[in-house]
Amino acid sequence: MSGSIIGKNIQISTWGESHGKALGVVVDGFPAGMELCEEDIQKFLDRRKPGTSSATTPRKEDDLVEIMSGVFEGKTTGTPISMLVRNTSQKSSDYSEIAEYYRPGHADYGFDTKYGFRDYRGGGRSSGRETIGRVAAGALCEKLLGQMGISVCAYTKAIGSVEIDYSKFDKDAIAQNPTAMPDSEADQKAMDLISQARSDQDSLGGVIECCIKGVPAGVGEPVFDKLDAILARSVMSIGAVKAVEIGDGTRVSSYYGSDNNDAFSISKGNIVKETNHSGGILGGISDGSDIVLRAYVKPTPSIARTQHTINKSGNNIEINIKGRHDPVVVPRAVVVVETMCAHAILDLMISNMSAKSENIISFYRNNK
Amino acid sequence: MSGSIIGKNIQISTWGESHGKALGVVVDGFPAGMELCEEDIQKFLDRRKPGTSSATTPRKEDDLVEIMSGVFEGKTTGTPISMLVRNTSQKSSDYSEIAEYYRPGHADYGFDTKYGFRDYRGGGRSSGRETIGRVAAGALCEKLLGQMGISVCAYTKAIGSVEIDYSKFDKDAIAQNPTAMPDSEADQKAMDLISQARSDQDSLGGVIECCIKGVPAGVGEPVFDKLDAILARSVMSIGAVKAVEIGDGTRVSSYYGSDNNDAFSISKGNIVKETNHSGGILGGISDGSDIVLRAYVKPTPSIARTQHTINKSGNNIEINIKGRHDPVVVPRAVVVVETMCAHAILDLMISNMSAKSENIISFYRNNK
Amino acid sequence: MSGSIIGKNIQISTWGESHGKALGVVVDGFPAGMELCEEDIQKFLDRRKPGTSSATTPRKEDDLVEIMSGVFEGKTTGTPISMLVRNTSQKSSDYSEIAEYYRPGHADYGFDTKYGFRDYRGGGRSSGRETIGRVAAGALCEKLLGQMGISVCAYTKAIGSVEIDYSKFDKDAIAQNPTAMPDSEADQKAMDLISQARSDQDSLGGVIECCIKGVPAGVGEPVFDKLDAILARSVMSIGAVKAVEIGDGTRVSSYYGSDNNDAFSISKGNIVKETNHSGGILGGISDGSDIVLRAYVKPTPSIARTQHTINKSGNNIEINIKGRHDPVVVPRAVVVVETMCAHAILDLMISNMSAKSENIISFYRNNK
Amino acid sequence: MSGSIIGKNIQISTWGESHGKALGVVVDGFPAGMELCEEDIQKFLDRRKPGTSSATTPRKEDDLVEIMSGVFEGKTTGTPISMLVRNTSQKSSDYSEIAEYYRPGHADYGFDTKYGFRDYRGGGRSSGRETIGRVAAGALCEKLLGQMGISVCAYTKAIGSVEIDYSKFDKDAIAQNPTAMPDSEADQKAMDLISQARSDQDSLGGVIECCIKGVPAGVGEPVFDKLDAILARSVMSIGAVKAVEIGDGTRVSSYYGSDNNDAFSISKGNIVKETNHSGGILGGISDGSDIVLRAYVKPTPSIARTQHTINKSGNNIEINIKGRHDPVVVPRAVVVVETMCAHAILDLMISNMSAKSENIISFYRNNK
Repeated sequence: MSGSIIGKNIQISTWGESHGKALGVVVDGFPAGMELCEEDIQKFLDRRKPGTSSATTPRKEDDLVEIMSGVFEGKTTGTPISMLVRNTSQKSSDYSEIAEYYRPGHADYGFDTKYGFRDYRGGGRSSGRETIGRVAAGALCEKLLGQMGISVCAYTKAIGSVEIDYSKFDKDAIAQNPTAMPDSEADQKAMDLISQARSDQDSLGGVIECCIKGVPAGVGEPVFDKLDAILARSVMSIGAVKAVEIGDGTRVSSYYGSDNNDAFSISKGNIVKETNHSGGILGGISDGSDIVLRAYVKPTPSIARTQHTINKSGNNIEINIKGRHDPVVVPRAVVVVETMCAHAILDLMISNMSAKSENIISFYRNNK
Repeated sequence: MSGSIIGKNIQISTWGESHGKALGVVVDGFPAGMELCEEDIQKFLDRRKPGTSSATTPRKEDDLVEIMSGVFEGKTTGTPISMLVRNTSQKSSDYSEIAEYYRPGHADYGFDTKYGFRDYRGGGRSSGRETIGRVAAGALCEKLLGQMGISVCAYTKAIGSVEIDYSKFDKDAIAQNPTAMPDSEADQKAMDLISQARSDQDSLGGVIECCIKGVPAGVGEPVFDKLDAILARSVMSIGAVKAVEIGDGTRVSSYYGSDNNDAFSISKGNIVKETNHSGGILGGISDGSDIVLRAYVKPTPSIARTQHTINKSGNNIEINIKGRHDPVVVPRAVVVVETMCAHAILDLMISNMSAKSENIISFYRNNK
Repeated sequence: MSGSIIGKNIQISTWGESHGKALGVVVDGFPAGMELCEEDIQKFLDRRKPGTSSATTPRKEDDLVEIMSGVFEGKTTGTPISMLVRNTSQKSSDYSEIAEYYRPGHADYGFDTKYGFRDYRGGGRSSGRETIGRVAAGALCEKLLGQMGISVCAYTKAIGSVEIDYSKFDKDAIAQNPTAMPDSEADQKAMDLISQARSDQDSLGGVIECCIKGVPAGVGEPVFDKLDAILARSVMSIGAVKAVEIGDGTRVSSYYGSDNNDAFSISKGNIVKETNHSGGILGGISDGSDIVLRAYVKPTPSIARTQHTINKSGNNIEINIKGRHDPVVVPRAVVVVETMCAHAILDLMISNMSAKSENIISFYRNNK
Repeated sequence: MSGSIIGKNIQISTWGESHGKALGVVVDGFPAGMELCEEDIQKFLDRRKPGTSSATTPRKEDDLVEIMSGVFEGKTTGTPISMLVRNTSQKSSDYSEIAEYYRPGHADYGFDTKYGFRDYRGGGRSSGRETIGRVAAGALCEKLLGQMGISVCAYTKAIGSVEIDYSKFDKDAIAQNPTAMPDSEADQKAMDLISQARSDQDSLGGVIECCIKGVPAGVGEPVFDKLDAILARSVMSIGAVKAVEIGDGTRVSSYYGSDNNDAFSISKGNIVKETNHSGGILGGISDGSDIVLRAYVKPTPSIARTQHTINKSGNNIEINIKGRHDPVVVPRAVVVVETMCAHAILDLMISNMSAKSENIISFYRNNK
């Protein structure tokens, strides 16, 4: 059954395998009239491009986006926006061996059981390259959110045991640091840790944090399309993510209610919360404060050191995975988390437009 | 926009407010031919019933389910199964005061902003009573899973700072202990902590763990309807849940790849994993091992001690919330997590039936 | 798989069997703030009530609606609106015989093949009583459309060979004439034809026309959620409907383009169409003129005269269907067509609110 | 809101404008393991290719399909199948004039109202070229149906006043006759009529019939995803279709029940219907007999003769539409109706696989 489509108002349909002809996405339902050019998308794709530092695979992937439909005279038309990125540098020969066995920590065994066989080249559909379509689609959403004064900002919070220090938070550093950390000291320590892991033929995981500022109160559709539920699904659907939390997340389980409750107060005529343990979401609806989400990312399963596994003939074997793999996927996954959040938020903001009957009535009165 | 429907093959549509006439659910797409009586549902609803110990509110709610449609001669007919529970003991007078202000930690402010007003009686639609429909629907799913040899078992892993000791795990104790912990010593400690919190006019959070045994490999639809993504959305949509994790969850972020990868091996002719850090899901598809999920639950926001907040007129005020509230919702939420997981799993198991073209062909050949 | 839910923004989930405890509907996504009481719904249900004339079955069905949720202090709250009608006068004994055979023109054989068995009492889920939920849900939509100046008006255009004469069209007569024809002369002739059919132990079909006035241009979502496509699905899903047409419908197949094209012109500053062969829809989008749809209804399959069929044991048999059946369902189906159209239109009007990015931006600017 | 995606299990997401870079489709949820090459798709696309006779536009459109993803080693992988056709011969200059006015019978006015502007080149998204994606997607479905012994066959039943004579029905003639009629005499008469219309600077409509053989009983999901409802929506969503009917369709409205009911009988051990007025569908579920559907197609709105309309400045004007237009779209639309029906049937056949709980149980028992 169909599983590669997400969203209600803006439906994203991604396609493509790591070593197929191309990867892409169709964005259906994106509203008309927004200025859009390929550069708007490219700058997001460049953030997930590898090869820019020793934190990532040395594979070269240019990943140039082409807009195939849905834009006319520089503006979105309201009809489906199809975008694609051609695969160019993929060398399938690297992967012929893995066709015969099931890599630990990978979806190989699941795919074979489910579909009877799999495109084993570079992970096929379960490759991290699958996220190209997501990022391209989410880039559109993030642009439109920006026009409404809403900023979506993801960054690396931790790699392995190295965590950022919020007192050194520098937003501009995110784009410059190879780890996408907003703290340049932590970035340096994390780069050292990555070097060590690489020389140990091992890999690392980490934590990505995303902060969304400017979402008005009222966004989210109880009880199943709550804002946090939709964000959790969007972010958990990213390959290596194993946990998602909102606000203080796992920590709230050991709080007392008197600590966890965020008091509302009036400050200079505005409704504010004195704290934000809730991460901007109460009862599945945005409360007007910053929305804060964290994704916990597992270490790259493809490592060079010897591992035990089985082959398709049912024998226990030892393997050494070849190929050029990221020692940690966190820095490249930052933009994926960010754009998936952007899509989820915008989609629910559209849903919210018809929450009151008076909104519908006044829309049609004003547009007569 | 519609937000109270979940599922693809088996669609659950819940309705009802805490103090309305009734609460209920329509389960559309549930397969025909399963034996079903009200007692099958009632035993699940009884697990979320309050008043059975000092761990819960002393409110009395009988919550008797009525099946209104979709069952004939003791079996499901394949047509929508409508179930409802009448509200009987709700006293709306307790709540008149809260109509005028926004309770910290509650959805009051979000609801008012979104819809223009709200049914303030007992939290209305954002009450924990909303989960009655979820549990009734999930109970059906759990019964059918049971007929396939799949067990879904949730329990309390922690309340506040008290955690279970897995070496004392006793499945039978879950149903008997007021905290729904599988460790009776921890249960006793947790009950003491709850007493203390209650006398401090405070509340506690906790952790619910759910373990699903017997799901075959291959379940989950990449890339957005991955098994973990769908589980995360289902569980995060439960009122007080602020984080969801699969397998080792948040901890994997600090693992090395060599630690986190689960080696496959052949044991007595079967494919097994030597460890289960993945929590039974790789690449969004079940891998045949136990599926393990944890939900982190915040402390009950309604507490008796004085809190700061604002009223609808825009004044800073102090409040003391009255009424009979749970000092911790975890024990009652266990069955909600369990049944939401049951639904998510069964729904994706149905989706998986058409993954191979040969499955479709042979189905129609066999059913001619 | 789920099949009893329709709509995108306003999702209607109907349930219930002819002789079960009750029938009903959950309306999820209906906007908040509309005044609503049971009488608003009841007056629509009364239009499908039988027993009011010899054109319908003499069965007595009071069909009193109860609103169970989603309304507070006389207004919709934005949360699911659950409505139900109890079955009271159903006599199941009439139907015991039909459990054993497949009635010609009925869904009995399909249901048994699909689900393995069926609730045979009064047709179970395939009974015309299933439409109670549709009408209740559509009544809400029609009320909101009315507040936007949009009228939805269905009536009987033909019964058997008797057709209305448009020169005698009297809108007020629709509610008064037992056939729901807007032409009282045709009504009288149709009543005579019905009497004749009844005494011949036979039944009649007919045509229902629905005209929707006031829908602004721009409603409908190309290319699959076109306004005509969604209307066609909604109306064809009504039990006895075998054809649906928009505007001049089947007749356009023999027109020349020069006849069929409706010229646009400016009249008193407004854009008008000089003719309306298109029935108000061009390219799947409303064009601002009246939307005109027709549904062709088959004759009631339950007739008293002797018929050939087979029983479940695989024998050719002769049957005489007992019970009190409508000699023609058209008059009672008029309100079903009308309310299904109302839902389809309102649902797509909501979708249209996000067609332009500037609409979204200005909505959030105005609602700050 | 998203409107270019259709289907539940196999979701088709089409994209592309008449004069954009390309047109295409993503087919998500198509089952794995079916052999597939571009030629399988191309032969369907060739049936909608123009320029092969005087019945169509002399424009040359090669419309060569490329499969971009979802196929590996000659078989579908279960992951999204992306296909595209590049636009090559489109000359946008022909269309610059129509940017300024609203063509009668076209969606121009609706698009401008809805989206604020439109891609006017060749009709943009509302062009008949939009159906390329539909045909490519439906071709996959028709291939899989073929492997189950199900044939889907559409043909021209009428063009203008010329109708086929069923006594001369020759299935092989459909592919050879330029009108796609199965009756070569009628084809010749229709070609003469087309010539006449063309020289009159006018256009013609017609009727397409589709007959699906081999669908087992039980397919269709009451009450809204009935087989006829889903077929009606799919076919009505095709550009020029203004009416859809099943079986005897509009004619049943004037039948008596005793004429319309199809008697079941046992013949050589099989359940058969003695007649097929129902067109193979009863109560929204297939009854095992041939499924018969007709689509009524309006005459091409783009005609060369002078027409009245308005321009965007609000002036009444006279226009003469230039360009190379089909005098009748029916022959080219035949394959569109056929493939849309193939998709609808296959999609509902998959839904039907989980109608009985025993089907699900035995699937998982057999696939262990």
